[in-house]
Amino acid sequence: MIRPFEYVDGVFRILDQRALPGREIWLDCVDEQQVAEAIKTLAVRGAPAIGIAAAYGLALAARQGRLETAASLLIAARPTAVNLAWAVRRVMNATADAADRPAAALSEAAAIWAEEIAANERMAALALELFPAGRSYNILTHCNAGALATGGIGTALGVVRALKQAGRLGRVYADETRPLLQGARLTAYELDRDGIEVVLITDNMAGWAMHQGLVDAVVVGADRIAANFDTANKIGTYSVSILAREHGLPFYVAAPQSTFDAATPDGRAIVIEERGFDEVLGFGHERTAPDVRVFNPAFDVTPAANITAFITETGLIRP
Amino acid sequence: MIRPFEYVDGVFRILDQRALPGREIWLDCVDEQQVAEAIKTLAVRGAPAIGIAAAYGLALAARQGRLETAASLLIAARPTAVNLAWAVRRVMNATADAADRPAAALSEAAAIWAEEIAANERMAALALELFPAGRSYNILTHCNAGALATGGIGTALGVVRALKQAGRLGRVYADETRPLLQGARLTAYELDRDGIEVVLITDNMAGWAMHQGLVDAVVVGADRIAANFDTANKIGTYSVSILAREHGLPFYVAAPQSTFDAATPDGRAIVIEERGFDEVLGFGHERTAPDVRVFNPAFDVTPAANITAFITETGLIRP
Repeated sequence: MIRPFEYVDGVFRILDQRALPGREIWLDCVDEQQVAEAIKTLAVRGAPAIGIAAAYGLALAARQGRLETAASLLIAARPTAVNLAWAVRRVMNATADAADRPAAALSEAAAIWAEEIAANERMAALALELFPAGRSYNILTHCNAGALATGGIGTALGVVRALKQAGRLGRVYADETRPLLQGARLTAYELDRDGIEVVLITDNMAGWAMHQGLVDAVVVGADRIAANFDTANKIGTYSVSILAREHGLPFYVAAPQSTFDAATPDGRAIVIEERGFDEVLGFGHERTAPDVRVFNPAFDVTPAANITAFITETGLIRP
Repeated sequence: MIRPFEYVDGVFRILDQRALPGREIWLDCVDEQQVAEAIKTLAVRGAPAIGIAAAYGLALAARQGRLETAASLLIAARPTAVNLAWAVRRVMNATADAADRPAAALSEAAAIWAEEIAANERMAALALELFPAGRSYNILTHCNAGALATGGIGTALGVVRALKQAGRLGRVYADETRPLLQGARLTAYELDRDGIEVVLITDNMAGWAMHQGLVDAVVVGADRIAANFDTANKIGTYSVSILAREHGLPFYVAAPQSTFDAATPDGRAIVIEERGFDEVLGFGHERTAPDVRVFNPAFDVTPAANITAFITETGLIRP
């Protein structure tokens, strides 16, 4: 299974997800600016992965005595994922009274990564309860909530991997996830690489695939879960939740505790990042549309009522 | 307004929609094989436009005494659009007892085109009843049901043009319509060219745009309407119909009588064309996904129950 990070002697290496699946390019970051830039430009994406990267970004900053300014810089890199601010706060707390602040920061960053890996495993194990043995399940997923998004086996794709291991997985339908195609480029890539049968569809085929009886359940990740369980995730997730309900399919959100944000009362309070026109006006380097206006929210909010259960490392939650 | 066809002295010219909006390339067809190829490869698409092209294809064949073989060839070019078989039957009937079969075929083809143009105008005028004066409406549309798809002002986009003329149009949200991006390449292009405000979105943003209150009504075209009013249209239309219902928005299908197929009892009897893997694994010349399996139905079927009204040239139908 692919791993998106590496830390060696003051260099935090990030696998550049923008170049996948075509090329494996590693970005060698030696300071927090490089990490913030990688987060901003989506070289690293996925809520848990963003948190891990931010923690290591702080660890790099700590070596140069810049913890406070680095914290604000990193938190500002992307507004929607709550794990970012959460990870920064954890590292700041861990270093507050430390004699060796660089060592404390690095150790906390490593702990955050290790905990996300463990959380993925625990979530995946707990999720099996939702998929009784004796049959196999076809799972539809949106965006990439896999190894690339978490540094571990993944949240949604961790569940898929556990189903596979338990002999209960049929195939995975992966929404391609326009505009940046995380489903086509990342989910199809990492599942195919691990020998898991994946069928790629365009986002507008999800409803019809459900109507044709091809899907048994939807499992997605999350970028921020409000106190009332409204959930921000990649744009398109909201529509998938409505389509799942229409077809009587369970809709599961797999997310570690670091994604839950008690300080955000409900979905209306979640800041949705809007991105540039070019992502929608074309495809990679190919421009496809004329020069018209664009609506490009990077995320949407799925109301708690559309979510059958949350799969977390501390247990299942039915909102 | 752009016109996708021209007929001059034994040459039927088709504007190649695959090259739009970047380049305007005209295909000069002198026989039915070239027209069938243009239909098969989507150089011409949109149900009414396919019917018109097939009729002219027959007119070209008639000049060479090949009406019967040409009819089967053209009908086989694409399975879902009913206008294709309908137009071929009309030309065959018109030539059956004609003294000058080439002249009769050409005259019937021209009549079919002229009638589709007139039907578009009539539909657009009748549709105004659905949008009471005194305010403006934001319309969401899927795929391209415009001038390029019909040879006239369009079915869905004819309604949009009438709203604009009546001073009742806000803006048009155009789904980009993966995999072949007819919304991004064709709808955005023809509306922008005519000075109509268009906002391009990826298909997975439609539900969120509705949730944010940006859309007042959905208007789409159709490729085949069964006797019970189940409606085949571009893949993704089914999902949009569910999302519209969820948000309490009217969902209108604008289609000429040539799209209604009394011989097809319901949606289950509509043959859905499945297309190749490459369309989903990438876009244009850019490959974006690894070599995995794909589900690529070109159309889906919207149940009659999800359709608020049909806008036809002979009146509004509420199923």
